[in-house]
Amino acid sequence: MVKVGIAGGSGYGGAELIHILLRHPQVEIAWLSSQQHVNKSVAEVYPHLRGFLDLKFSSVQDLPAADLDLLFLALPHGHAMKMVSGLPKGLAIIDLSGDFRIEDPAVFEEYYGIPLEAPEIQKCFIYGLPEINREKIRGARRVSNPGCFATATILALYPLAREGWVKGPIFVDSKTGSSGAGNSPTAGTHHPRRTNSLFPYKPFRHQHLPEIVQVLAGSNPLIFQTYSAPFVRGIFASHYMELHRPATAEEVRALFMDYYGAERFIRWVADKPDVNYVRHSNYTDIGAASDGPHLIVWSVLDNLQKGAAGQAVQNMNLMLGFPEETALNLAPVHP
Amino acid sequence: MVKVGIAGGSGYGGAELIHILLRHPQVEIAWLSSQQHVNKSVAEVYPHLRGFLDLKFSSVQDLPAADLDLLFLALPHGHAMKMVSGLPKGLAIIDLSGDFRIEDPAVFEEYYGIPLEAPEIQKCFIYGLPEINREKIRGARRVSNPGCFATATILALYPLAREGWVKGPIFVDSKTGSSGAGNSPTAGTHHPRRTNSLFPYKPFRHQHLPEIVQVLAGSNPLIFQTYSAPFVRGIFASHYMELHRPATAEEVRALFMDYYGAERFIRWVADKPDVNYVRHSNYTDIGAASDGPHLIVWSVLDNLQKGAAGQAVQNMNLMLGFPEETALNLAPVHP
Amino acid sequence: MVKVGIAGGSGYGGAELIHILLRHPQVEIAWLSSQQHVNKSVAEVYPHLRGFLDLKFSSVQDLPAADLDLLFLALPHGHAMKMVSGLPKGLAIIDLSGDFRIEDPAVFEEYYGIPLEAPEIQKCFIYGLPEINREKIRGARRVSNPGCFATATILALYPLAREGWVKGPIFVDSKTGSSGAGNSPTAGTHHPRRTNSLFPYKPFRHQHLPEIVQVLAGSNPLIFQTYSAPFVRGIFASHYMELHRPATAEEVRALFMDYYGAERFIRWVADKPDVNYVRHSNYTDIGAASDGPHLIVWSVLDNLQKGAAGQAVQNMNLMLGFPEETALNLAPVHP
Amino acid sequence: MVKVGIAGGSGYGGAELIHILLRHPQVEIAWLSSQQHVNKSVAEVYPHLRGFLDLKFSSVQDLPAADLDLLFLALPHGHAMKMVSGLPKGLAIIDLSGDFRIEDPAVFEEYYGIPLEAPEIQKCFIYGLPEINREKIRGARRVSNPGCFATATILALYPLAREGWVKGPIFVDSKTGSSGAGNSPTAGTHHPRRTNSLFPYKPFRHQHLPEIVQVLAGSNPLIFQTYSAPFVRGIFASHYMELHRPATAEEVRALFMDYYGAERFIRWVADKPDVNYVRHSNYTDIGAASDGPHLIVWSVLDNLQKGAAGQAVQNMNLMLGFPEETALNLAPVHP
Repeated sequence: MVKVGIAGGSGYGGAELIHILLRHPQVEIAWLSSQQHVNKSVAEVYPHLRGFLDLKFSSVQDLPAADLDLLFLALPHGHAMKMVSGLPKGLAIIDLSGDFRIEDPAVFEEYYGIPLEAPEIQKCFIYGLPEINREKIRGARRVSNPGCFATATILALYPLAREGWVKGPIFVDSKTGSSGAGNSPTAGTHHPRRTNSLFPYKPFRHQHLPEIVQVLAGSNPLIFQTYSAPFVRGIFASHYMELHRPATAEEVRALFMDYYGAERFIRWVADKPDVNYVRHSNYTDIGAASDGPHLIVWSVLDNLQKGAAGQAVQNMNLMLGFPEETALNLAPVHP
Repeated sequence: MVKVGIAGGSGYGGAELIHILLRHPQVEIAWLSSQQHVNKSVAEVYPHLRGFLDLKFSSVQDLPAADLDLLFLALPHGHAMKMVSGLPKGLAIIDLSGDFRIEDPAVFEEYYGIPLEAPEIQKCFIYGLPEINREKIRGARRVSNPGCFATATILALYPLAREGWVKGPIFVDSKTGSSGAGNSPTAGTHHPRRTNSLFPYKPFRHQHLPEIVQVLAGSNPLIFQTYSAPFVRGIFASHYMELHRPATAEEVRALFMDYYGAERFIRWVADKPDVNYVRHSNYTDIGAASDGPHLIVWSVLDNLQKGAAGQAVQNMNLMLGFPEETALNLAPVHP
Repeated sequence: MVKVGIAGGSGYGGAELIHILLRHPQVEIAWLSSQQHVNKSVAEVYPHLRGFLDLKFSSVQDLPAADLDLLFLALPHGHAMKMVSGLPKGLAIIDLSGDFRIEDPAVFEEYYGIPLEAPEIQKCFIYGLPEINREKIRGARRVSNPGCFATATILALYPLAREGWVKGPIFVDSKTGSSGAGNSPTAGTHHPRRTNSLFPYKPFRHQHLPEIVQVLAGSNPLIFQTYSAPFVRGIFASHYMELHRPATAEEVRALFMDYYGAERFIRWVADKPDVNYVRHSNYTDIGAASDGPHLIVWSVLDNLQKGAAGQAVQNMNLMLGFPEETALNLAPVHP
Repeated sequence: MVKVGIAGGSGYGGAELIHILLRHPQVEIAWLSSQQHVNKSVAEVYPHLRGFLDLKFSSVQDLPAADLDLLFLALPHGHAMKMVSGLPKGLAIIDLSGDFRIEDPAVFEEYYGIPLEAPEIQKCFIYGLPEINREKIRGARRVSNPGCFATATILALYPLAREGWVKGPIFVDSKTGSSGAGNSPTAGTHHPRRTNSLFPYKPFRHQHLPEIVQVLAGSNPLIFQTYSAPFVRGIFASHYMELHRPATAEEVRALFMDYYGAERFIRWVADKPDVNYVRHSNYTDIGAASDGPHLIVWSVLDNLQKGAAGQAVQNMNLMLGFPEETALNLAPVHP
């Protein structure tokens, strides 16, 4: 049994990691930390997990690094980069924050508002999007797990960017559920406000934009607008663009099949995407509609699964040599 | 024009008061306070009211008591009782907190957890439930506005209590929308938790219970259980009881018609109550079903209207001699 | 008192019309029809209006045309055009369907799937968007009320189209609440499916597109994509585009102020649009964000108010010479 | 591998059965029927299951009875009793409808509105509530799966009824999510109506009442009131009662532990029940609060899991000799 720890395990991402790892036959959750809940049991912090994991939250200072094989870091931005340099080289690490996603320190600072403390450490991290970087992840000891918005948009645009189909700017209208904001109550997640609302935030400047640009490395301007939507789980991303030459629905499908036809966690859904149909699963559903010269590509995923904890476990499976879908092979749940 | 002020006007109750008073032909909103938002405009604090009221929030310390005819106090529990003794006798006051609802200081302290500072001032306050206390309110200068749960349950039980129909305990299962918790985000109103949930709180001990007991003055034990429900506005109260002698649906209806047939803001709805159908109005819909020996009585209201600001304006109209329904004569809104 | 009738008054648009007209001091609702609810009372069909209007639904065949001054037609597409030719010339008409919005019969048939039966009658109808066509509406006897999506997008794009700021295609991502689908249950409005979902429908081909194109008369391709969102009321429309020359936020604001600064029912909200803040009102909130070369314009409205019944009453007020805001001067409601 | 079929597999209960059985290591789903969707694939009818089960829906007439080991009947009430007599004795059957739950034909007819066609067949069915009837289910070939409301209320009241703690009537206030109504759109599940509502239905007369009475066999009148609540999944049942002698919280807990302490799918939650914390799992969380003479007992479950498909698989495991928790050992999911 591989022993894993989760630092910062009291957020929604942490709960989801626990939930997935509980059904992983080769993994034992050996340690959890939460600065807010030191010494509380999992059952106190997560009532839904009552009876499933008999463990107390520690302080992150008490990390038993030598006893763990792999550590998930689910800390707020800025914490992982302070911590990683002190950890044993042999400890495999998957970081779910933005700390190691951006290669260019100036870009990191621009979007995250803090300096990138350890650029040389950042270079050791592989960007953990298996559908793009699978082979690099297999051998890696350090993986930086992508952002939820970034996962949705990179997967939607990667084939088009690689093949150079798009002319001019790509406009992204991406809506997130409230769980993306974490489990601390805020004005934007207050039920009376959120439940019947839709509103934009961070115009043009969401911090997931630079990792998308870094991966796509394209010449098309990317206009990236995020919205808060009144569901709990899910990213629904719409991508609007003009094509160099008109494409039929079938040509678009063929392009995506070419790239993703063998992918376990990507499904083609034509013009029927819905966040309902990927919920509580590691799937990204991708579809599109075309009027010939213009193309709309949609991607939907569960922000806590493929957008965070599910993808982290997918990365772990690759890093540790387990079958990639271990513990992730459940169908989405509806209703 | 009557000049009114609202102390503590930046909560949901305050916004609702403003909304109602804006359509009151005899009233001018002359002053607003909010400790949190001093010097901010109404439009900044309430984006939906942009363009409707050109006023800034003051500090409650800057109350221009001499310039106002009537003051609504919409402050947290414990604040009004510190403040009222310093106000001019001539200033009419409607307090929306629990500070002046309870006659017995020991009971007040038991349920509110703080001592009742000015019991003699409490005695000057009339309990502002017009359907029960209309004539007393007409002459009053000091009115204590009832709690939202209390309004729903008193109106549902008053005829039965007065006529002595009930044998044994009355069980109350009362569900509230999230706006009842106010506009400060909390764990219980965090969208990911609240939107698909139902959970009880304050078993047997909600602070609205003593004002209900005080008004009903009955001998039936009252078991009062409150729940958080996943809608925004509304109280849905179910009352379960055994009757001394079996009653038909028609007899029950006749009893309630007898008490409330002439009431503008009470409607009889038989077995079809729904919070949907009173929303954004000052109405209480009451209905019932009976199997003969047992009776279920339902009452539904909008917690920010009949449960708070609407009833406060109804009280104001009575106190100032305006027609009782002024500014309150809009139909409920659905969907 | 002006006597008005509503044909097809049992849908959400009809209920909203009744709700608004009940507070109109110069109007009496004299007649209502519903094929589904003939002889039922308003209270049976709309429980929230219990006690507000003592009227029964008639059959549309029993229209007392001679006794009415104005008739609202709130019938499904295809019905109004069969009916209007038989109505007295003197009867003012406001049609809420799509029947008379489209000038070109071929375009109408393409989008509505039925032939335009009376093209010459269509020519008598003024497109009832007061902010664009106010003077024509004032003298009109026949007005065609715009679609909800169309109102949102035309108001958002009109100044830009008129001034020729936009280079290349405009992409519209427009989300509607469930009330837009009417009050008949369907798969797309089934609560277990709708409440946590987001999904596109009618890719590129929504029937509101041609009326937008007709009004804007621009040369920019319009890519128009509609979505079902999990709130009840509201249209939230996002418009993405590239500009011929970069514009600052202030220049964009100035442009819109130039066109709409005097409009009672349009508010500028910069980068803070939210469907929450226009609900239950006739307002359209418009805002924008720019990164220089690219522009996002947002418009939000209540689909049953400015998107249907509110705008219909605004048109009625203009047609009949009442102040334009009569019965529409209530602030939005939140939460 | 055991081969199972699902007749009537296109409803929410059927989808949930498939979802659970897909992770059952000893079971193969060999056949599905749906009168509405004959010849459609699982992916067409359930987009979330796309890629997980390559099977088409048959007509129930084409049941390959000889090729199946066990058949789940998920048909509307009244269908199973017409069908079962024609099935081979060797085929194990679990019926999810109400057809075989009620022993007394007169009571059945009173609550279901149709005659019980085959009372002698009904006698062959074991009432499939494992926590009460485990040993009988183990040897059974015919099991009648309990109703969702019935499961919640029987589990909450069984220890109290057996020990005779309750004096006088027990009042049950039970709220269901919208998925309980099935996947056919109706007025009560129309999103604009349901999403912010709460309303009672079937006062005193829900068809799950007689199976509760039959199991509890107590002398306390049971007043059973059901409500439609605005969440999707879940039963939240509140039970109100007076006790013969006062009980402390600890005594109540001890009673329930005595009965359920060894149960895998029951958790004691004191005064913290919430439908959030059992969702997508087979758990029933039970808790209580007492003021001494009066007791409130709460039970919450997922209506599609412990209230339907989960319990059906629990019964299957018992009938076929598999470990009872096989395929049901996932933790609840939140948020």
